[in-house]
Amino acid sequence: MKTNHDSGTADTRGGKVSLVSAGPGDLELLTIKAARTLATADVLMLDDLVDPQIVSLAPRARVIRVGKRGGCRSTPQAFICRLMRRYAQRGAHVVRVKGGDALLFGRAGEEIGFLRKSGIEVVIVNGISSGFAAAAALGVSLTHRDHCRGVTFVTAHAQDHSEPNWAALAATGTTLAIYMGMDRLESLSAALLLQLPAHTPAAVVQAASQPDEARLLTTLGRLAVDARHAGLGSPGVILIGAALAEAAAPALQPSLLLAKGCG
Amino acid sequence: MKTNHDSGTADTRGGKVSLVSAGPGDLELLTIKAARTLATADVLMLDDLVDPQIVSLAPRARVIRVGKRGGCRSTPQAFICRLMRRYAQRGAHVVRVKGGDALLFGRAGEEIGFLRKSGIEVVIVNGISSGFAAAAALGVSLTHRDHCRGVTFVTAHAQDHSEPNWAALAATGTTLAIYMGMDRLESLSAALLLQLPAHTPAAVVQAASQPDEARLLTTLGRLAVDARHAGLGSPGVILIGAALAEAAAPALQPSLLLAKGCG
Repeated sequence: MKTNHDSGTADTRGGKVSLVSAGPGDLELLTIKAARTLATADVLMLDDLVDPQIVSLAPRARVIRVGKRGGCRSTPQAFICRLMRRYAQRGAHVVRVKGGDALLFGRAGEEIGFLRKSGIEVVIVNGISSGFAAAAALGVSLTHRDHCRGVTFVTAHAQDHSEPNWAALAATGTTLAIYMGMDRLESLSAALLLQLPAHTPAAVVQAASQPDEARLLTTLGRLAVDARHAGLGSPGVILIGAALAEAAAPALQPSLLLAKGCG
Repeated sequence: MKTNHDSGTADTRGGKVSLVSAGPGDLELLTIKAARTLATADVLMLDDLVDPQIVSLAPRARVIRVGKRGGCRSTPQAFICRLMRRYAQRGAHVVRVKGGDALLFGRAGEEIGFLRKSGIEVVIVNGISSGFAAAAALGVSLTHRDHCRGVTFVTAHAQDHSEPNWAALAATGTTLAIYMGMDRLESLSAALLLQLPAHTPAAVVQAASQPDEARLLTTLGRLAVDARHAGLGSPGVILIGAALAEAAAPALQPSLLLAKGCG
């Protein structure tokens, strides 16, 4: 298992798979290492959430789209794994590109496990997860020592359709960065309102770092209504917690929709 | 407030401050945007945790070290803020460099608030927080849909010396990424052992992504003893949770010290 700190030089005798994190969208938010890794790709396997422009950074690669979203049928995970293995075993440098950071909600664990069992070298290259880009878009820290001890990244979506333990999450006192929650804003807001005051600062950032970025700054009590009213949908990151109070000066303005670039 | 998605071109009439995230250490893990921002710095203000080599990316900048660690006296936060403001008001592009991602445990909130009140333009450039680099070093995802719903980044250190709500944190079922906890491994392990089984996978990564990176993979029950035995200290990231079980194949090996590059 090679990781961030290893040399990116390929073993020219054998193939390998690089799991490269594409970040939140803006290609300038790729790491230098990610760009260098893409430049040596023989095969590029792209998720839907990744900016198609990224192929320009992998000029010699065969491009395979394996997205799981949108109108087309998803590519089954097992098929993706076998495809990566097949190319790597033929000696190719396969670059598997995932949005955000591959190690957060990216199913990287399953792919790493599969490749490791097959004896294939895996290189992991970190990236900027969209929750961080969302905070940057709002001009706010995810943590603020006056307000909280940390931040929790949680997905509202689970295979078994179960809910996260919202009561425990609220009790941590950490900022909540909720992914894949835009289609259940009402239910997650209702669950959190059992634990947190309605005036708790809340925000949504859609397409963070991208040209069509949209930002909403509101309160937990108004989150679902205001997000619908503003026309915000998936994919978006929801941020909830006292640290968000620092997002707008001089005071938090409920229901303030921040259009692109006006913050 | 300008953010990730804005153009990085400086307003040549007025100064500004760019809060640039330096990532976990390896300069290749800087974003392209961070490197480009550094290249136009007039003044570079560096934290102790940042690799001094970063100055090579800011060839025209005056370098000011404002670290808070090490043998020397810390630079007071208020002084740092005033210094940034003074240079920016003189028309300089001040690049304030922070380790990891500036928006996570970086006191960025205080600096953004101060600069905003002074009417100074602030640009935020995200980076890789060391918890992500630690997971990459271990070859493991921070989340795994078989094991958890998310990850919580929490600091064990608070100004008022209070403890995080370890019971609530454990109850979330998220992977825990604990920063600034190496000097209180015993107490935090003891607190978590009241909530989680002793066989819960745990790891420490010191200097993730750097040449002297060291990794320990163990269990919560043995975490403090094994980390001391391995000579691990600050700064290090502690990872705890079922998702870490995927870190070693074929099965988790307690007390396995993974030396640099052998994973």
